Amino acid sequence: MKDPFPKKEVKIAVIGGGTGSFMMLSALKEHTTQLAALVSMADDGGSTGVLRDELGTLPPGDVRQCLVALSDSPKVRDLFDYRFEEGTFIGHSFGNILLTALEKMTGSFSDAVETASEILHVNGTVIPSTLDNVRLKMEWPESGTVLQGERIINADFFKHDPRKAILSLVPSATANPMALLAIEQADVVVIAPGNLYTSLGPLLIVDGIADALKKTKAICIYVPNLVTKHGQTTDFTVSDHAAEIERFVGAPFLDYVIYNNEKPTKTLLRRYEEEGAFLVKIDKNKLSKATYKALPGEFLGNMAPKCESDVLPVTRSLIRHNSKAVASTIMDLYLKDSESHS
Amino acid sequence: MKDPFPKKEVKIAVIGGGTGSFMMLSALKEHTTQLAALVSMADDGGSTGVLRDELGTLPPGDVRQCLVALSDSPKVRDLFDYRFEEGTFIGHSFGNILLTALEKMTGSFSDAVETASEILHVNGTVIPSTLDNVRLKMEWPESGTVLQGERIINADFFKHDPRKAILSLVPSATANPMALLAIEQADVVVIAPGNLYTSLGPLLIVDGIADALKKTKAICIYVPNLVTKHGQTTDFTVSDHAAEIERFVGAPFLDYVIYNNEKPTKTLLRRYEEEGAFLVKIDKNKLSKATYKALPGEFLGNMAPKCESDVLPVTRSLIRHNSKAVASTIMDLYLKDSESHS
Repeated sequence: MKDPFPKKEVKIAVIGGGTGSFMMLSALKEHTTQLAALVSMADDGGSTGVLRDELGTLPPGDVRQCLVALSDSPKVRDLFDYRFEEGTFIGHSFGNILLTALEKMTGSFSDAVETASEILHVNGTVIPSTLDNVRLKMEWPESGTVLQGERIINADFFKHDPRKAILSLVPSATANPMALLAIEQADVVVIAPGNLYTSLGPLLIVDGIADALKKTKAICIYVPNLVTKHGQTTDFTVSDHAAEIERFVGAPFLDYVIYNNEKPTKTLLRRYEEEGAFLVKIDKNKLSKATYKALPGEFLGNMAPKCESDVLPVTRSLIRHNSKAVASTIMDLYLKDSESHS
Repeated sequence: MKDPFPKKEVKIAVIGGGTGSFMMLSALKEHTTQLAALVSMADDGGSTGVLRDELGTLPPGDVRQCLVALSDSPKVRDLFDYRFEEGTFIGHSFGNILLTALEKMTGSFSDAVETASEILHVNGTVIPSTLDNVRLKMEWPESGTVLQGERIINADFFKHDPRKAILSLVPSATANPMALLAIEQADVVVIAPGNLYTSLGPLLIVDGIADALKKTKAICIYVPNLVTKHGQTTDFTVSDHAAEIERFVGAPFLDYVIYNNEKPTKTLLRRYEEEGAFLVKIDKNKLSKATYKALPGEFLGNMAPKCESDVLPVTRSLIRHNSKAVASTIMDLYLKDSESHS
């Protein structure tokens, strides 16, 4: 197996889906080349969903975004993100087509990601969390409600409290050994911002991932979303987000939760509120009693993202993390931690 | 403008379409890295045709085959030739999709070819003969018969003698300056085997190409097809082929015509004859009086080609040039010529 961290530098494993990981990887790569992106593999919407349905391949979308984040070749990066606007290929991003062609050709999604990494001159390692072809399932045992498929779950307004729901992958998913190795060898594990139920959850519940997170000596840091998701995480606080992450893993494994305490403009907030999205509330009281250390920071950025997920509405692209500030905070935590252990 | 021949070695410009050029380039690259592939740009059939029609782009198919021939990266080569077998992308080769995405993205087919060359680690230069978006037209002024489009012409059984037909590009096509530079700077120009009316003709009639061929100091060598094309070049001899090439250019510019005099097995011949294809006849009398020197050789190969054009039926893939033998003969001619001039 390829070494997920081939050089001596701080080793960071970033856990997430597409957009959140893209943001964290883009900022962290200024600090280290030893980055491993562990990618959620339950996506079945948009271009990715069509390719999965038609060709039986694994979901390329989130992997593509992580590859692009770690690429050193601006030209090929743009190509990977290029989305056809007309004709037979309308709506498909080129990188998705490439990963799918490579998987069909080689019969292995791992090989596909490796070859794509070479083409893109990727600095770091992109690791699908599982190589099993699985679909996401969310069920509320009390009411018998079941939602199947990432796209469907993502679009749903939950009738019941999602904290009471059981998230599973169908059929069962075993972790990619490379993903486990990355968590084991990492100095820092970052849980990137991302949707709890359709992005982070489906990754954390892959068989083997939770055990690896409980055992690793890495500092585990979670960066929660800035705003809630309408009909899904309405009223969720910072500690509610962290509690769900730890529920998926089945143990209090987080060392740090770093959250934003900067306020966006009222105009911007209002635009979000019209869509049912609100700033994630800071519940200082609960956070002060948590098993992890909760650290506030001014983490708002003004930049529009360079890379959009298949499903994110463009109007939401304004309340964003200042990824540089988040990355600096992560590096500070790592340095402080290594000093205290030396 | 990029130098078509950046190093000091024998400089060879290969003129052709997809499959014939692929064969010549694959063999010649064992002798020199200074190869320029000038590519016909009138293709509008198969995957290429669909992409042109839907997206208004230039034809990628023949360019793709030349890029693959000159690539140093086996993995990416296989990817470029990979053809989807199901779903939305059925019948499309990945390299065609890549070139089209790059052209749509950059707005320039030249830039697309350059970036694709980087991705493929291409040794040499692939040069579209023209960057004008043109369609092929073939007309017989006497009868008023007109055929439009490469795909249609390729599939036609000509009612009249093609030697009386006028071939043109609609609207008019101006040569890519890089193509003219390559012909000017070359030590050897090879006209690769290829269809006279849908591949070589459409390239040679691009405005500027003929003048460049008349002026160049390069040795000009033509390698005619081994078999005739049913309903198009029926009964054509070696000298008939060469005469058409010189008719397109408008002058006797050829220095050498190297033709095969080896016989395939009777079984193989019969299979071809069932499809109306016959060995190109050697008309020694005419050849001995030609302005060029006609050289015979045992040029039959047994290898199935690694790269198929969009339109070539698989059953025809058996009477093939021994490309190594042809390339050696070309190198011998070049060496003899440079000795006689030194």
